[in-house]
Amino acid sequence: MTVASIYEPIQVQLSQVEEKLDQVIRTAPLQMREQLTQALRSGGKRIRPALTLLAGKFHHYNLDVLIPMAASMELLHIATLIHDDTVDDSHLRHGKTSINRAWGNSSAVLLGDYVFAASADMTAETGNIRVIKVVAQTLMTICSGEIGQSLKPFNESREYYFQMIGNKTASLFATCTESGAVLSEAPEEVVQCLRDYGYNLGMAFQIVDDILDFTSREEIMGKPVASDLSRGVFTLPTILFLERSQINRVKEILEGDKEKGAETLVETIRNSSVIEECYQVVQSFCTRACSALEQLPRNSVYNSLTGLAAYVSERKS
Amino acid sequence: MTVASIYEPIQVQLSQVEEKLDQVIRTAPLQMREQLTQALRSGGKRIRPALTLLAGKFHHYNLDVLIPMAASMELLHIATLIHDDTVDDSHLRHGKTSINRAWGNSSAVLLGDYVFAASADMTAETGNIRVIKVVAQTLMTICSGEIGQSLKPFNESREYYFQMIGNKTASLFATCTESGAVLSEAPEEVVQCLRDYGYNLGMAFQIVDDILDFTSREEIMGKPVASDLSRGVFTLPTILFLERSQINRVKEILEGDKEKGAETLVETIRNSSVIEECYQVVQSFCTRACSALEQLPRNSVYNSLTGLAAYVSERKS
Repeated sequence: MTVASIYEPIQVQLSQVEEKLDQVIRTAPLQMREQLTQALRSGGKRIRPALTLLAGKFHHYNLDVLIPMAASMELLHIATLIHDDTVDDSHLRHGKTSINRAWGNSSAVLLGDYVFAASADMTAETGNIRVIKVVAQTLMTICSGEIGQSLKPFNESREYYFQMIGNKTASLFATCTESGAVLSEAPEEVVQCLRDYGYNLGMAFQIVDDILDFTSREEIMGKPVASDLSRGVFTLPTILFLERSQINRVKEILEGDKEKGAETLVETIRNSSVIEECYQVVQSFCTRACSALEQLPRNSVYNSLTGLAAYVSERKS
Repeated sequence: MTVASIYEPIQVQLSQVEEKLDQVIRTAPLQMREQLTQALRSGGKRIRPALTLLAGKFHHYNLDVLIPMAASMELLHIATLIHDDTVDDSHLRHGKTSINRAWGNSSAVLLGDYVFAASADMTAETGNIRVIKVVAQTLMTICSGEIGQSLKPFNESREYYFQMIGNKTASLFATCTESGAVLSEAPEEVVQCLRDYGYNLGMAFQIVDDILDFTSREEIMGKPVASDLSRGVFTLPTILFLERSQINRVKEILEGDKEKGAETLVETIRNSSVIEECYQVVQSFCTRACSALEQLPRNSVYNSLTGLAAYVSERKS
């Protein structure tokens, strides 16, 4: 399925989400609008709001609450990107200059805070205490994932990696689908199925991101590649490479010229069989995501969710 | 009135707020607890939670919601301090090493985000959509105040200054008292009176802070003094000094050695009559704060609120 056909059942509502984001820009103090425009009209894929809308379409598709909720999920994502780029001193995002690079770290910190607040404001618009609580707890989870990754570099444990990406990425995907289901008044077991789908999809999504960090080119990704390893963050490709008992090979490569060593290491991992093995792990998460949907009716929304799982595992940027 | 006698009607509940803050530390991921302990047990005066509790005591003093709300207000304040210190590259807070200085800017950004999320989580505990919305909007207002001050240095307009401190400080004071009143199910006109009190108290509080930045010593304030002027931020003392048509005197002072010039300028302002004039402005905001309470019953809580206004205008740190 193409992205267009996956998004087809929610296409009109996705443009209403864009309007909601524009509203954040329009109602902001004058001096922040240019920065907000850059941050919110970044050309992201809007996967998170799409998930909220799709998950909300199995029962009562109540747009009065689903549109602000979907917008809130994108805002939360954007706020974390702004702060992540600041923390990592990244200079590119979606192929454009990052907020921190364009406006300085101080503005990026404050702008990120503002976008967090705008997200909380939109969540509150739903009037639903359960989703408001889930969103607050998700932000705590995301932060603990980010802090975990920054405090424990060079961690070669696969379990630790899964826990960290679960916190920093999958938790938000899960909240997107959970909130959509809750706000459509789905029965609790359906809420849990859609939450499971979101969580596993998020795991797959992040692993693909981490693979592309090795295999893609900057022009395609819109951000520098191999940036994780250069920051000492071990993602699945590196971890699998180390698991294959090639620790001596790693030492050998990294001995001598350090920078050149890291480059060689990326090159070696890229051309090794671990990339294929990583894709098998992605596939297993996608399979789990789709299995979670088993009891749902086979309609166009169901097809979009399974199509999204296939798209996520095959994406190139 | 002493602080102890001002806090007397809510003393027991304030220690319950401390327990709530400790709960944030205890339930956080292991790797964050040391940083959180430093941030949350900083020895602040807890004025904001005190305001929420006092404002909540005129009607239904429902501690199930007022305690989490009061804790949420302190958390929001602490989160903004962590990010402010990062943005301003401050090294001291409450006489101790700031979070950014102790753990680095990246950790400070993420820790601040975590504390924001914890604040949102506690606000959600109240189950009250109105206060949840007000808190989200207050955070937007605070950020726009901070951004405004960082984007427009050397602004000598008194109106702009009042607007900025209204956004960055008084808005949160107003939310503290408003939320306390709302959660105690006070009639709407009482809510508005208490909100007005909070806003004007917050204005007075910030102006005193800005005066102390000129007149106090680092050992008393627990942070470097004259830091505003050195960052190009014009606060009331500088603005009044410039209004007194002493612009030529300023130019004269700043000509030649720049650093020495700034020092001399601080010294000149400190010893001028504008400090006394600033205190008159503080007094007028305190008077307005107390006038807002006029229709409230004259009980111990009322005495605490008026006592707090007097305390705020006389405080030395």
